[in-house]
Amino acid sequence: MTAEAPVFHTPASLREPDPEVVARAREIVEGVRSGSRMHLGRAITLIESNAPKHAALAEEVVRQALPYAGQSIRVGITGVPGAGKSTFIEALGCMLCREGTRVAVLAVDPSSTLSRGSVLGDKTRMEMLCREDNCFIRPSPSSGTLGGVTRKSRETIVLCEAAGYDVILVETVGVGQSETTVRSMVDFFLVLLIAGAGDELQGIKKGVIELADTILITKADGNNIPRTEAARVEFARVLHYLTPPTPGWNPKVLTCSSLEHKGIREAWEVVEGFRDFSHASGHFVENRKQQTLDWIEDMLSQQLWDDFIRNEGTRSRWPEIKRQVLEGNLSATTAVKQLFNAYTIHHD
Amino acid sequence: MTAEAPVFHTPASLREPDPEVVARAREIVEGVRSGSRMHLGRAITLIESNAPKHAALAEEVVRQALPYAGQSIRVGITGVPGAGKSTFIEALGCMLCREGTRVAVLAVDPSSTLSRGSVLGDKTRMEMLCREDNCFIRPSPSSGTLGGVTRKSRETIVLCEAAGYDVILVETVGVGQSETTVRSMVDFFLVLLIAGAGDELQGIKKGVIELADTILITKADGNNIPRTEAARVEFARVLHYLTPPTPGWNPKVLTCSSLEHKGIREAWEVVEGFRDFSHASGHFVENRKQQTLDWIEDMLSQQLWDDFIRNEGTRSRWPEIKRQVLEGNLSATTAVKQLFNAYTIHHD
Repeated sequence: MTAEAPVFHTPASLREPDPEVVARAREIVEGVRSGSRMHLGRAITLIESNAPKHAALAEEVVRQALPYAGQSIRVGITGVPGAGKSTFIEALGCMLCREGTRVAVLAVDPSSTLSRGSVLGDKTRMEMLCREDNCFIRPSPSSGTLGGVTRKSRETIVLCEAAGYDVILVETVGVGQSETTVRSMVDFFLVLLIAGAGDELQGIKKGVIELADTILITKADGNNIPRTEAARVEFARVLHYLTPPTPGWNPKVLTCSSLEHKGIREAWEVVEGFRDFSHASGHFVENRKQQTLDWIEDMLSQQLWDDFIRNEGTRSRWPEIKRQVLEGNLSATTAVKQLFNAYTIHHD
Repeated sequence: MTAEAPVFHTPASLREPDPEVVARAREIVEGVRSGSRMHLGRAITLIESNAPKHAALAEEVVRQALPYAGQSIRVGITGVPGAGKSTFIEALGCMLCREGTRVAVLAVDPSSTLSRGSVLGDKTRMEMLCREDNCFIRPSPSSGTLGGVTRKSRETIVLCEAAGYDVILVETVGVGQSETTVRSMVDFFLVLLIAGAGDELQGIKKGVIELADTILITKADGNNIPRTEAARVEFARVLHYLTPPTPGWNPKVLTCSSLEHKGIREAWEVVEGFRDFSHASGHFVENRKQQTLDWIEDMLSQQLWDDFIRNEGTRSRWPEIKRQVLEGNLSATTAVKQLFNAYTIHHD
């Protein structure tokens, strides 16, 4: 094997798990299942660790937690800054917790590492919810890349489910690729929008409303009610031109006021209606299976690509090939063949 | 090298082109550049050939044609069946040809192989345009997969440009992935829509209107005019919520009647305005460069993936790994590592 050969190797522990790792993982998973938020928090910290020495234990913890996972409803919530995500999540979360539902609130937001303070950076934003015994709040993992955040968020969901949380709220800010990422790990996707004179709505990223199982126009209180009602009608028209993300489920457009606590229950009833519908149609189970398989394919494609572009042969040829292509002296098809040739010779 | 190692090898002819192939390619490119439609047609047939014996010559033809290519404006045109694509292209094409502009009409439509007769399957659909000396019409390549169609369509554009065509109209039907594919190979993307009682518009595929540099509501004639005008206003509202595909260019919504030849010139003036704008802003050149690089990346990713899933080690492990993942006994992250391990051991 040359130095440039692919670098993916399954640790020995994966094929034949180290008994000590298995035993430690069992303790951790028991702690998680006991319902202790402290144990759950520590287990998530382990999952989020980038230290190679934690990798085998983290994987074993997820493996042992998996049989206890899968029972929640996973709800993605997005919206531009200012759309009132925190106050909505607090209002919804408190309502559910007081009814005996256990609610976990997670954040997926790669930008939070840049200290933009966008998502749950400050737990005090949800003061009331934090005090609920039935609630667990976890800020965004501090990994720099979205790929890493994705892995950790999915596995954090598994741990929260194993800990008995009934509802997993996955919050994201409407930037970059994060909505698509969250959409791919939840059962139901809720988009929060604010009504306004029209221009405020331009903050919505292209394509986000297409991902919505329901659109919720926030801040429907006081003299803002006519505007939220107009926005509701308008977005119902816009949705008319889009294919619903969940086959057979027509996305709803609702309004709510988190301040006056109006429309929160109605919004949750839509989620429950969706859950009933998708369990009955079989979509729920099939969608989760497909999400897992898609995720595996995404990770594989990404690793194949990473290995390819890290490859010494490929990397050394690319600048010259790129130059020739952009100057019109080399066709793209030929460029691809030459790059593959540069890559594969290292495996000979 | 084991039997399962990657199978990509640059033919010797690519590294040191066979002088005979170079000479034959030169003849073909000279024929194309002479302006003879027969020579152009034959060259495209060569490009479209799936026969391995034609591959080296086809690549050399494209390579030699490249320096003469790139001078046209490439316009993608899509719309659901019944939106009037053929009559619009005929009206626009005849107008341009009679003014001395040379127009090539290509089709990208993987479904045409299924004899749906959707795109240019019958040249007689454009009887008038076919008779124009300045026009070249080419139906969809008969390759089964969209990937193959993409390669051939992009290289067909190169040949048409080398043959001196000023305007390349790339037609596609609004199904599957074909609009995104066409969007990625043109400068300007035109979406044709029909007005109606509302429900007719649901035939538009999700996301297609997001790709539009301009929306053209067709059949604005007779008592249909109020409906097309209402649709124009409605789509202008919908576009308001979408990010324009070309930065700095706000998509227009126009109406036209191909039958009464109204609005055709106005539609073309928008394309010309776009060309002037995007040349001035530098977007035109940058976009073409980026399209080429993106295409190379797409082809590479696809080939990496194809090799991976064809790999004997990967293929033999996948059913068992998939079963374990879906039963919740194996985490997706571990599955990815195990699959990579199964893949890479063949390169050791």
